[in-house]
Amino acid sequence: MTARIDGFSKLSKVDKIDWIVSNFTHDPEGFKKLLKQYWNDDSELQRIHDEFAENTISNFYLPLGIAPNFLINNEIYAIPMAVEESSVVAAASNAAKYWLDRGGFKAEVLRTEKVGQVHFTYSGDTSWLEEAFLALKPKLIQDLKPIMRNMEARGGGLLELELRNKTSLLENYFQLHATFETKDAMGANFINSCLEHLAATWEEEIAAREYPDGAHPNTEIVMSILSNYVPDCLVRAEVSCPVNELDEDAMDATLFARKMIQAVTIAQVEPFRAVTHNKGIMNGVDAVVLATGNDFRAIEAGVHAYAAREGSYKGLTEAWIEEGQFTLRMDLPLALGTVGGLTRLHPLVRFSMEVLGQPSARELMILVAVAGLAQNFAALRSLVTTGIQQGHMKMHLLNILNQLGASTSEKEKVVAHFKTATVSFSAAQEVLEQIRQS
Amino acid sequence: MTARIDGFSKLSKVDKIDWIVSNFTHDPEGFKKLLKQYWNDDSELQRIHDEFAENTISNFYLPLGIAPNFLINNEIYAIPMAVEESSVVAAASNAAKYWLDRGGFKAEVLRTEKVGQVHFTYSGDTSWLEEAFLALKPKLIQDLKPIMRNMEARGGGLLELELRNKTSLLENYFQLHATFETKDAMGANFINSCLEHLAATWEEEIAAREYPDGAHPNTEIVMSILSNYVPDCLVRAEVSCPVNELDEDAMDATLFARKMIQAVTIAQVEPFRAVTHNKGIMNGVDAVVLATGNDFRAIEAGVHAYAAREGSYKGLTEAWIEEGQFTLRMDLPLALGTVGGLTRLHPLVRFSMEVLGQPSARELMILVAVAGLAQNFAALRSLVTTGIQQGHMKMHLLNILNQLGASTSEKEKVVAHFKTATVSFSAAQEVLEQIRQS
Repeated sequence: MTARIDGFSKLSKVDKIDWIVSNFTHDPEGFKKLLKQYWNDDSELQRIHDEFAENTISNFYLPLGIAPNFLINNEIYAIPMAVEESSVVAAASNAAKYWLDRGGFKAEVLRTEKVGQVHFTYSGDTSWLEEAFLALKPKLIQDLKPIMRNMEARGGGLLELELRNKTSLLENYFQLHATFETKDAMGANFINSCLEHLAATWEEEIAAREYPDGAHPNTEIVMSILSNYVPDCLVRAEVSCPVNELDEDAMDATLFARKMIQAVTIAQVEPFRAVTHNKGIMNGVDAVVLATGNDFRAIEAGVHAYAAREGSYKGLTEAWIEEGQFTLRMDLPLALGTVGGLTRLHPLVRFSMEVLGQPSARELMILVAVAGLAQNFAALRSLVTTGIQQGHMKMHLLNILNQLGASTSEKEKVVAHFKTATVSFSAAQEVLEQIRQS
Repeated sequence: MTARIDGFSKLSKVDKIDWIVSNFTHDPEGFKKLLKQYWNDDSELQRIHDEFAENTISNFYLPLGIAPNFLINNEIYAIPMAVEESSVVAAASNAAKYWLDRGGFKAEVLRTEKVGQVHFTYSGDTSWLEEAFLALKPKLIQDLKPIMRNMEARGGGLLELELRNKTSLLENYFQLHATFETKDAMGANFINSCLEHLAATWEEEIAAREYPDGAHPNTEIVMSILSNYVPDCLVRAEVSCPVNELDEDAMDATLFARKMIQAVTIAQVEPFRAVTHNKGIMNGVDAVVLATGNDFRAIEAGVHAYAAREGSYKGLTEAWIEEGQFTLRMDLPLALGTVGGLTRLHPLVRFSMEVLGQPSARELMILVAVAGLAQNFAALRSLVTTGIQQGHMKMHLLNILNQLGASTSEKEKVVAHFKTATVSFSAAQEVLEQIRQS
C-alpha cells in the first residue's frame, strides 16, 4: 500500500506540498511552482489564510466581482460577489439596472429565530418526564446564564425551551427543542455550546431525580446540535412596477409579464423545474454569502429544505399582477453573521463589509435576499425572451477562447463575430480557425 | 441619487476599483492597495482569472487543503478540498484514516442520466397533440444531430424524448421531457443548446401542421432549460466493518455503533436534524466540487431536492448492523464534469485533477460522494461521543487568536492550555489576557 501517510497535518506547508506533488502528480516541480505562484507575497497575510483551515497548501481563487446599481429600500448599493460561474455577476448587474428606474428592490426581515436541539432517548413514563422538565426548566435555563452572558448583553440569548415528544416518529425519541436570538452572530458556535451544556445538566438532573417505583428508566443523550433549518429566520424581498413599464426589446410588456408569471408558476408545480429555478436564485445568494465570509452550505441546506416544506419541492418566488401592478416576491430563510467566523478575519470580507456599509446581520439578510431575487428575475427574463444560452454563452466566450489559446487580437475578432451569432464551443472553434487561416 | 453608474462593465479593472473604493469605502487608498495585494504577480495568469467572470476586481481566496489517506475501491487518494470552514479538512482526514484500516470506502456509479425540458402551453385537443408529437418525433431528433455530433462521437447524446401532459398541475401546461447522457461533461451548455433548438423546431412544426377544424390552437413555448434535479445520475458510497472493530477511546464499540445508527435514524425522521446532517455531508462534497471546478449551486440544489423526494425532507445516509457488520451508506445525485466549464482553465483545478488521477466524470462522482460520506461519519462520530464543539473549536482556535492579535509565542501558550480545556471565544480571550499579564 503506497501513498498512505502518518502525521501529514504535522508537516510544514512546504513538506506537505513536496509529499503531495511527488506522490500524486507526474510533474512535481511544475506543480510545486504552480502552488507557490498562488501564495500571497505578504507572508503574514498568507499565514492568516493558511490558518483558516487545515492542511492548507495554497489559495483557491474565486473571482471577486462587483454588481453595481442595486437600489434597495431607497439606497444604492454595489454588491460584491465571489463566484466562479460566468454570467452571474452580469445578470445581477443587468437586473439591478433594470429595477433602478422602476422603484428598485424592497426587502424586510420578517423574523430572526434560530433553532437547536438536544436529541435523547427515554424509555419511562411520559408524564413523569414532562413534569420533570417543567420542574427542572428554571434550573436548566439558569445554568446557561454564564455561557449566554455576552450574547444577552448584546440583546440575544435563549428565547424558548420545550420538551418535545417525538415517539410517534421513533421509539423513545424526545428532544429539548430550543430557540435562540443570536443578533449579529450566525450563532452556530454559541448555540452548540449552549446545547452541549444543556444536555449535560439535563442528563445529570434527570438521573438524580426520584422515579416513583425506584427503577430509574434510562435517559440517554444521542447528540446536541443546532439546526440549519431556519424557517423562522426569514427575509422577504420583492420588485414591483406597473405592467406597462415592463418593456422589452423583443416582447410586448403584457406578454412579458404573463410569461414571467407562467415561468414562476411552473416552478411552483414542477419539481424538475423548481430545482433549477432555485439554483439560479442561489447563484446570487451564495456569491454574496461567500464574499461576506458566511457559510454557504448552511444557507443552501436551509433554503432548499424550506423550498420542500409543503411536501413537494417548489420554486421560492411568487409572481402576480394586481390592479395593473406586476410583483415578483421571495421569502428566504437566511441565518447570517456579521461577527464571528471569518467575517472579521478575511481581509477581502472586511472589504465586502465596508462596500456594503458595514451591515448588521439583519441588513445583510436583506442584501443577500435581493441578490437572489435579482438573479431569479434575470434568469427568467432571459428564459422567456431570448433563451438562456445567448447571454450565458456570450459571457462564457472568453473562457472558451482562453482554452483555445486565442491571442488578444484573435479574441477581439471572435467576440466581434459573435455580436450577432450564437456562441457554442464548436462555433467559436470554427471562427477562430477561419481567422487563423485568413 | 448618488453612486449609480452607467457603463461600469466597460471600465478597466483599475477604473472599476477606483470607482468602488471612492464611492463605497472610507479608506479608498487602503482598500485599493488591499485589492491589488490579492492580484497574482503573473499578469497573464491574473487575466485568465479576471475573465472567468464579469466586473472582476480581485481574487477571493478560499483555503486549498489536502485530506490524505482515502482508501477508495482499494486505491489510495489524497483529496484536494477548497473550503473556508475550519475543521472540515481535519474531519475528512480523520475519517479517511479511521477507515484506512477498516476496508476503506466502496463506491459505485448507479446511473448517469440527465434531464432537460421544453415547457410550453397548448390549449387544443390533447390527442391531436399526442399524435403530432409521435409523428414529428423522428424529425425533432434528426434536427438535433448537428448539435449532438461531438457529444455522440464521445458516446453521449439524447436518450429519450417524451411529451408529458402536465395539465393536472397547471392549465394547458405540457413538456417535452428529454433525457441525456453527457459523458465527461456536466452537460448544462450542451443540454440547453439542444433544448432551445428543439423548442424552435417543435414550435415551427406544430404551427405548420394541419388542425382538423382549421382554427389552430395556440402553442406557446414558455422556456427551455436543463434540470439540476438528477435523481437518475446517482452514485452510491459506503463504509462497512465488523461492529467490534468500531473501537473508540471514550465508548464501547457496540454502544458507539448503536448511537451512530440512532443518529442516522433521527436524521431520517426529523427534518430539523436532517438539514444539518445533510449540511455536514455537503461540507465535504462542495469542497471537492469547488476544487475540481464544478458548480456547487447545481450540486446543492439537486442533492437537497433529492433529500425531499419522498415528501418530507430526510437525511441522506442510512446505517444498519447485519450479522455483526456495521454499514453506513449514501446514495447521492451528482451531475459533475471533468471537461468544459472551468475544469481545464483554472490552473488549481488542473492541479486537483492531477492529484486525483485525472478522473472521468464517473470517477469524480465516486470521489465526491466519498468525501461527503467521510464528512458525515466524522460529524456523527463527534456528535455521539465528545460533542461537536470540542473538535471544531480546537480547529477554530487559531482564527480566534488571530482576531485577538496574538503573537506566535502567545498562540503556542494558548494552544497548549486548550489541549485539556474547552475552547470558546471568551475562554480564549481570558487565557490570552492572563498570559499577557503574567
